[in-house]
Amino acid sequence: MAMSDESGGGLPLMAKGSGARETYANPGWNLLREDVSLPTAVLYRQRLENNLHWMQRFADSRNVSLAPHGKTTMAPALFARQLAAGAWGMTLATATQVAIAHAHNVRRVVMANQLAGKQNMLIISELLVGGELDFYCLVDSVENIRELAAFFSTRNQSLQVLIEIGVAGGRCGTRTPADVDRLVAEIARHPSIKLAGIETYEGVIHGDNLVERIRAHVVMVKDICLDLLAQNVFATPKILLTGAGSAWYDIVAEVFGKTLNERIVPIIRPGCYIVHDKGLCMHNQDRLMARCGPDCGVEGDLQSSLEIWACVQSIPEPGHAIIGMGKRDLAFDAGMPVPILHYRPGTQQPQAAPQHWQAVSMMDQHTAMIFQPGDDLRVGDIIAFGTSHPCLTFDKWQQLCVIDDNYNVVDLIQTFF
Amino acid sequence: MAMSDESGGGLPLMAKGSGARETYANPGWNLLREDVSLPTAVLYRQRLENNLHWMQRFADSRNVSLAPHGKTTMAPALFARQLAAGAWGMTLATATQVAIAHAHNVRRVVMANQLAGKQNMLIISELLVGGELDFYCLVDSVENIRELAAFFSTRNQSLQVLIEIGVAGGRCGTRTPADVDRLVAEIARHPSIKLAGIETYEGVIHGDNLVERIRAHVVMVKDICLDLLAQNVFATPKILLTGAGSAWYDIVAEVFGKTLNERIVPIIRPGCYIVHDKGLCMHNQDRLMARCGPDCGVEGDLQSSLEIWACVQSIPEPGHAIIGMGKRDLAFDAGMPVPILHYRPGTQQPQAAPQHWQAVSMMDQHTAMIFQPGDDLRVGDIIAFGTSHPCLTFDKWQQLCVIDDNYNVVDLIQTFF
Repeated sequence: MAMSDESGGGLPLMAKGSGARETYANPGWNLLREDVSLPTAVLYRQRLENNLHWMQRFADSRNVSLAPHGKTTMAPALFARQLAAGAWGMTLATATQVAIAHAHNVRRVVMANQLAGKQNMLIISELLVGGELDFYCLVDSVENIRELAAFFSTRNQSLQVLIEIGVAGGRCGTRTPADVDRLVAEIARHPSIKLAGIETYEGVIHGDNLVERIRAHVVMVKDICLDLLAQNVFATPKILLTGAGSAWYDIVAEVFGKTLNERIVPIIRPGCYIVHDKGLCMHNQDRLMARCGPDCGVEGDLQSSLEIWACVQSIPEPGHAIIGMGKRDLAFDAGMPVPILHYRPGTQQPQAAPQHWQAVSMMDQHTAMIFQPGDDLRVGDIIAFGTSHPCLTFDKWQQLCVIDDNYNVVDLIQTFF
Repeated sequence: MAMSDESGGGLPLMAKGSGARETYANPGWNLLREDVSLPTAVLYRQRLENNLHWMQRFADSRNVSLAPHGKTTMAPALFARQLAAGAWGMTLATATQVAIAHAHNVRRVVMANQLAGKQNMLIISELLVGGELDFYCLVDSVENIRELAAFFSTRNQSLQVLIEIGVAGGRCGTRTPADVDRLVAEIARHPSIKLAGIETYEGVIHGDNLVERIRAHVVMVKDICLDLLAQNVFATPKILLTGAGSAWYDIVAEVFGKTLNERIVPIIRPGCYIVHDKGLCMHNQDRLMARCGPDCGVEGDLQSSLEIWACVQSIPEPGHAIIGMGKRDLAFDAGMPVPILHYRPGTQQPQAAPQHWQAVSMMDQHTAMIFQPGDDLRVGDIIAFGTSHPCLTFDKWQQLCVIDDNYNVVDLIQTFF
């Protein structure tokens, strides 16, 4: 939120802690004029747009539907853009995330998680009243199915569920075909629970020969789905067959996207793509593009659209700068932030930060960056950092500045964590 | 915020993403009745109170003032309690944090950081208008002093600064006596900049013989302060001499707390103590209490007051539970969360979680916990986890439930990150 304008405008956009989620009202802020207090989170409009359409074109080209994972940004304004660009629906991780999306007019949701806990069931139940929300969640245990059945039948509601197929040593999900059969049988005992498809998350598979292992797993999941279809156990007209985080959506799309059956809706669920990064996601995407090769069929590529802009607050030793941002401001679990731009207030344009400038450690409110003692860097300079793992940067900010190519702030994106 | 009550009450407290920071209005929620959607962050009222008063008594017993570091919680309701318990003022880390504290009636602040960037200076400048805010920030470079002087003199204001004394290889702060002299000389050139004391943060000192090194550093800082006092370079009636994070406040208090001079106000700045934890802070405090020994002079000790309550959503393999909480919900940079309580909805009371239940990995929205296959744990059970490093858990929550000894929610604490 902008601070109060009582004293005549020109007051800074307070990037942090403002609380209120007000609509941006054209104040003409510009990052190079230092109109925004630092540190601040910055999204490049053009790159967001690029990413939005690139992934939709990718999904279209593979004949799969796209349900972007909204947990990455929890920014309903971005959900709206993803849906407008052609997404089938949104993926979310928790009942409260679903409630927030629903409050912002999202009407088709895969909650790629088990629905556990009385109040979480109540949240979903309340959202289902009125019948406007097309909602799916995962099941992987008899106990959970029974709890869901008891809850939703008491409320005279039905719940669409997908059986989650997991991997040994991984996260949630059934581990064996016998487990799947047990779940199918349990679901069949409860008229309030509607089996609507099959889900997996292949991102927890690790080890050697990873491409082959991922493909084998995804093929196995597809076969289970076809097998259950042959057994006529699905209770809904459309059957969801869904997988894919941000690293393997090409393989999932390749396996699920073949027209398997007219009832089957194949869905991929990447989340980070809309923001992308300069770390984990970039590496995953580079590998994916290498796998796709010249046959990718979709022009261009994803672009890192998120930066944190922060000030050099101290250069206490030669070649050792302390930047005014830290673990309170951006992700640190998948590599250090990467200096991208160097800007000296009062000059015309940011310059590319030299490659040897490197963030080497992060504390709560500070980041140490090394440089060569002879470099032209001084206290008060601004550094724009690329990030790794956008999810854990987004949840540090209640609002992010969207900028155009001239560093004008053209929008504020609100998050709901 | 509670969800809309239009349908007649009983709706859950949505722990996440609600956005609005409404005052709690006595809805009679109880955690054991599952009135709050999980995961949720929980603060134990009695333990908060214990910690609040324990640290104030410690400071009083050592003749030092207490300026709790507010960055830990960024919860103005807790700031108010800390000040009411006797704190001299608050410590904060950034200009926006200061603005938030000021908006909640905090009127004496050490910003334990350099003030860099035009908008951050403007934020502080605006807060100083009216003269009600007693504000101090750190300086450690000639460049920054010149920028501050240019900014504040143009606005016909003066700024109280503390020279930060750092350590080689550490964070901010001057490294040599010659640097200190240079800063003193630079400050003397600018009537708008008032030298008001000396600051250090000893928490970045590492290595062998740590206690001796910490003490030697703190003694050196004290000596610099006395030396500058003898040179009559301080521009304010009172001179702040301040150090101490949450690990070494005993040593800082011991060195600074002796009556050095009637103008000198010795100040310690621990932050995490009010919340405390089951990891990093606990270990630091255990070491501190061992150093103090029977001469501590303050009864009792700090208590871990923060837990995250979450559901078992899946037990996909024997002895392998997936809990519905993750990196979006609590700190993971200083050790895994620790299972403290196990509660089965519908039973009377939570039980102590067995020691062999251990969180072993965290993802964005999930935590894996191992247990013995024969243990009585099932899907739908609730686990309360202790945390390590409260700062990075607090910034994941816009509100935390304060509970009494019967697990009634007696207050909601709002944070401003």
